[in-house]
Amino acid sequence: MKLKVGILGATGYTGAELIRLLLSHPGVEISWLTSEKFAGKKIWEIFPQFRNFLDLECTKIYQLGNLDKVDLAFSCLPHGVSMHFVMKLIQSGARVIDFSADFRIKDVAIYETWYKSKHPYRDFLKEAIYGLPEIYGEKIRDAKLVANPGCFSTGVILGLAPLLSKGFVKDSVIVDSKSGLTGAGRAPSLDVHYSETSESVSAYGVEGHRQKPEMEQELSNLGGAPVDVIFIPHTVPINRGILTTIYAKLREKKIGETILELYKQYYGENSFVRIYERGKIPATKNVRFSNFCDVGIGFQGDTFVSITTLDNLGKGAAGQAVQNMNIMLGFPEDEGLKSPGMYP
Amino acid sequence: MKLKVGILGATGYTGAELIRLLLSHPGVEISWLTSEKFAGKKIWEIFPQFRNFLDLECTKIYQLGNLDKVDLAFSCLPHGVSMHFVMKLIQSGARVIDFSADFRIKDVAIYETWYKSKHPYRDFLKEAIYGLPEIYGEKIRDAKLVANPGCFSTGVILGLAPLLSKGFVKDSVIVDSKSGLTGAGRAPSLDVHYSETSESVSAYGVEGHRQKPEMEQELSNLGGAPVDVIFIPHTVPINRGILTTIYAKLREKKIGETILELYKQYYGENSFVRIYERGKIPATKNVRFSNFCDVGIGFQGDTFVSITTLDNLGKGAAGQAVQNMNIMLGFPEDEGLKSPGMYP
Amino acid sequence: MKLKVGILGATGYTGAELIRLLLSHPGVEISWLTSEKFAGKKIWEIFPQFRNFLDLECTKIYQLGNLDKVDLAFSCLPHGVSMHFVMKLIQSGARVIDFSADFRIKDVAIYETWYKSKHPYRDFLKEAIYGLPEIYGEKIRDAKLVANPGCFSTGVILGLAPLLSKGFVKDSVIVDSKSGLTGAGRAPSLDVHYSETSESVSAYGVEGHRQKPEMEQELSNLGGAPVDVIFIPHTVPINRGILTTIYAKLREKKIGETILELYKQYYGENSFVRIYERGKIPATKNVRFSNFCDVGIGFQGDTFVSITTLDNLGKGAAGQAVQNMNIMLGFPEDEGLKSPGMYP
Amino acid sequence: MKLKVGILGATGYTGAELIRLLLSHPGVEISWLTSEKFAGKKIWEIFPQFRNFLDLECTKIYQLGNLDKVDLAFSCLPHGVSMHFVMKLIQSGARVIDFSADFRIKDVAIYETWYKSKHPYRDFLKEAIYGLPEIYGEKIRDAKLVANPGCFSTGVILGLAPLLSKGFVKDSVIVDSKSGLTGAGRAPSLDVHYSETSESVSAYGVEGHRQKPEMEQELSNLGGAPVDVIFIPHTVPINRGILTTIYAKLREKKIGETILELYKQYYGENSFVRIYERGKIPATKNVRFSNFCDVGIGFQGDTFVSITTLDNLGKGAAGQAVQNMNIMLGFPEDEGLKSPGMYP
Repeated sequence: MKLKVGILGATGYTGAELIRLLLSHPGVEISWLTSEKFAGKKIWEIFPQFRNFLDLECTKIYQLGNLDKVDLAFSCLPHGVSMHFVMKLIQSGARVIDFSADFRIKDVAIYETWYKSKHPYRDFLKEAIYGLPEIYGEKIRDAKLVANPGCFSTGVILGLAPLLSKGFVKDSVIVDSKSGLTGAGRAPSLDVHYSETSESVSAYGVEGHRQKPEMEQELSNLGGAPVDVIFIPHTVPINRGILTTIYAKLREKKIGETILELYKQYYGENSFVRIYERGKIPATKNVRFSNFCDVGIGFQGDTFVSITTLDNLGKGAAGQAVQNMNIMLGFPEDEGLKSPGMYP
Repeated sequence: MKLKVGILGATGYTGAELIRLLLSHPGVEISWLTSEKFAGKKIWEIFPQFRNFLDLECTKIYQLGNLDKVDLAFSCLPHGVSMHFVMKLIQSGARVIDFSADFRIKDVAIYETWYKSKHPYRDFLKEAIYGLPEIYGEKIRDAKLVANPGCFSTGVILGLAPLLSKGFVKDSVIVDSKSGLTGAGRAPSLDVHYSETSESVSAYGVEGHRQKPEMEQELSNLGGAPVDVIFIPHTVPINRGILTTIYAKLREKKIGETILELYKQYYGENSFVRIYERGKIPATKNVRFSNFCDVGIGFQGDTFVSITTLDNLGKGAAGQAVQNMNIMLGFPEDEGLKSPGMYP
Repeated sequence: MKLKVGILGATGYTGAELIRLLLSHPGVEISWLTSEKFAGKKIWEIFPQFRNFLDLECTKIYQLGNLDKVDLAFSCLPHGVSMHFVMKLIQSGARVIDFSADFRIKDVAIYETWYKSKHPYRDFLKEAIYGLPEIYGEKIRDAKLVANPGCFSTGVILGLAPLLSKGFVKDSVIVDSKSGLTGAGRAPSLDVHYSETSESVSAYGVEGHRQKPEMEQELSNLGGAPVDVIFIPHTVPINRGILTTIYAKLREKKIGETILELYKQYYGENSFVRIYERGKIPATKNVRFSNFCDVGIGFQGDTFVSITTLDNLGKGAAGQAVQNMNIMLGFPEDEGLKSPGMYP
Repeated sequence: MKLKVGILGATGYTGAELIRLLLSHPGVEISWLTSEKFAGKKIWEIFPQFRNFLDLECTKIYQLGNLDKVDLAFSCLPHGVSMHFVMKLIQSGARVIDFSADFRIKDVAIYETWYKSKHPYRDFLKEAIYGLPEIYGEKIRDAKLVANPGCFSTGVILGLAPLLSKGFVKDSVIVDSKSGLTGAGRAPSLDVHYSETSESVSAYGVEGHRQKPEMEQELSNLGGAPVDVIFIPHTVPINRGILTTIYAKLREKKIGETILELYKQYYGENSFVRIYERGKIPATKNVRFSNFCDVGIGFQGDTFVSITTLDNLGKGAAGQAVQNMNIMLGFPEDEGLKSPGMYP
């Protein structure tokens, strides 16, 4: 018998991707979908690609209490809103994977600095597991609540983890990310208006972006010492994909020679993290619609460079969430995620 | 035990899509891939998305005789070249699905007019089955050679078949197609150069395109009377997708009322052809990476309008070929093709 | 001394293009700009490209009475709203070029059918001149009010005018247009959301679009007999440009031979309408940011095909308006419009 | 009487942009254009936007000796080839602006390391002036040969010059550039194939790009001390535009407060370099088709960030060349370059 799952806020891009992945998953079935904007509509009216695939009608979230009990729920609700419904679902006995940042930051003071409000469920922060399976696989297995990582953070942490695990990185790194526009969501605004974006590159968050403290928390944990992150995200006119260029100074020059081997061993052979040979650099097109994070490394003078690509809706959001779900529910880790990148 | 398949000319876009689909097919395995340009390279060096998925090396086609016997081969070779290797494969006992136009046209005179050369295997033309499963399903089952339809032709025939089957269409139709750029292939040229195409729409074949006789042949067969097709293809800056707008005059005005029902019945419920409700018009984004052809219909004054969308590499090429393969080899018709469209 | 102009609703795409063109025009200066959404902001805060070029602050339209008298005003306000302010400006002594459809349709009954409301200034409809200079040049010279043509209509009328002027066209034409997304305006919505559009082609107005009666009015006038237009617009992911494919049956077959010459003579040598040689088909990229409408013609069987390209913000809107302004104010017709298309 | 100019290698993107700019320049006329690939064709057959604008036929370069003497020639020939024809033109009495890198590097040893061949005109290197008018305006005035800067280098140098002129920068900077695809030229290849690029971001030159020594030369000159540059260029799917993100450590923390003022004063009010207010970050769309380089600055922690945008064919190539030409020939510096950015 299939396990039941539900999705809060199912009609954004993360929701659509999650539905797509869950439809091909042999072990689960979707019980309900909520959407404030499209409640009352069939999901295939909103996303015509699901015509003949899923005939569910979206409901408003206030009806949550009336909806079927599920084994696991996903929340695609916005920061600050998600936490309240996550807590309700947990009280109802469901396990939850939360796409918002509400439970990612462990240090309440840092949370409150960056999100500019008190955290009402601060005692629960330590229960939440940061949902990066390559790092926290064991803890995810038994978690009630998984805080699915930010899309940028995933690429940065995976691109530096082997190096940090050995303590090779000097105290700060520079992270320059280039993101596709689904990262900005499905709500219309000038920032994602076709003609404002299709022939332009721009930067944002130059003086500080909310995923920076999340990166610093995880990189510092990995390295066992504080790591400062200088992080500037940019938007580029593609739908899906983040390429992140990471610049780091290493403690010693000669470390360089063995780094490729270190990376390969750290992730192993059947990982969703694929390490490229020296001289090969990944491009976002080769991970689109997949759960892979591809990593290329190199040196320019003394500076170590790690370039990572992922699909912000895949390994950066819905794919990673399904990977987490698989671990939580006892499925093979790659169930429903076996597809290569889709191109062109 | 899995059946064996091979691909001639595997490193274009049709080849890449075919590999992707076959990798997820439970009943077949790829034995060999040929590529004149990339022979000697692993397929994942050419298409990095296949890293960890398929470790085959491409070979030159002159080695065909030395390659493993396969149950079925696909030819993605160009028009005029394909036919020779198709014949060799058939002589070796393989069944073949040919993406080229070499065996699509039944009337040798028409073939020779449009392709400007003698057909060296004219006796074999009648053996080849036109690979549109919704029309020729039965014949495909036992075919030695399936001529996979043109990408434009597929959308046009499926968009008019129900109407023609009833003889409702007056003697000519106007077909205006808008195609993505993978339709022009992977060989570099100014026609597919990024900056020549990304901000432009253009028309080609204004005075006649090679898929026109193919459309006329099939539409005339369906209607039992000659149908003239005026056909102009256009290129638009998307990767995948063809939207075709078909304008037809009907024999009688009142036919209109029942057409929607006619279309739904013609294709049935579990078809790869999905008929939209009146007033809903399909967009190419909802069929990308899928094997669906979506159809919306309407009237403007007395003119009947049928709008069809498909992925030129999916239902317009590789998806349709896998559907044909499934029929030929006795798999469920949708094996390996169960994915919804991928968006955004 | 420069003449003074003002722009109502200046912060959409038509407004931005108009400002750009007027900035390089030696004979006029911009006195004011209105914007309901951005009132109080400098125009270069909204459009950073105008930094160091124009330091005007946008005002709300209710302040119209307090603004400087201008010699000529442009209205980029929406249909149904524009008419009221157009009338006020005319009463104040200004001449007006109106981008809305409010004064394009001469037959009140047709207006009211398509726009579903009474026309409050019906007596003034006959005073308004349809602003297509290639047809109405003389009347535009003395007009108080010029109704700037629709972007689609411009391409259709210019693509058929020579033929109609000779009465060569049979009673109906099929018009299939492919438009860039600036045509949908700058107000955010899902229809112009980057990820909803960037990899998709779609059709709209399948059962009737508001520019259809405008086309029928003008084509019928030109031909001296009613012309039915079947018109379906499509959106394609480019910023600027409309390519329109027009299919027409001619009264006699042998007319074909002289059509190219007819087109060249009709427009003359220094026109903004450029006729291509037989076999050459225009693409939208070559008219971007210009005031040109390029026309290619051909035949497929008995069907005459005319393919026209223009920039929907250029000859389809702001460029054409400046051309009209030049005629109205006595400047050379191409003043400020001498730029070739901009590519890539 | 107009001065005469010629263009070597006129049918790439730099050539097309140069022709466009020169056509609107009141003081010069184009005498000849060379093109190896398109010799014998009218320029408007290659670039249809020039129909009715310029009727010149392209010639092969071996005919250079037979072509009209010009006052100034532009060379858009490739590195290593350009130098020979540049020398011939100079011997003929023409002044030259060279788009290649052949005369940019002053230190022959560095040239030979990066370009892997002997420089045959090494004595002439010191005569060539690096064509960045904001830095070398005076020297350009009398130069025989101007080496037009690299597109990336222009954005980096202008984004750091004020800071370096005060000696504020510590010894190294990190430069992360995102470039449109016209930067890769008009010769077809997989790297600029539509479907390979339109939905992808990639990095190249990770271990060293040829514009790095050029940046280091100029930044070191400006600062009076060696500056190491870590430089990684990326390609993004836009036609025109480079956004460069520069990360620098400053010598002292408190320098930060006055930097904005320093930048504004360094470039002055009517410069092609526009400094944005704190908190405003430029986007490439606002400088397209213009000669502007827009600069936004900020801090993230202790790291100074400068973000510059320019059109790689404008201020990054042809626009800058026309600016150099204006200085060399005694025209106002902005003649023919007064246009704002073109958007959308």
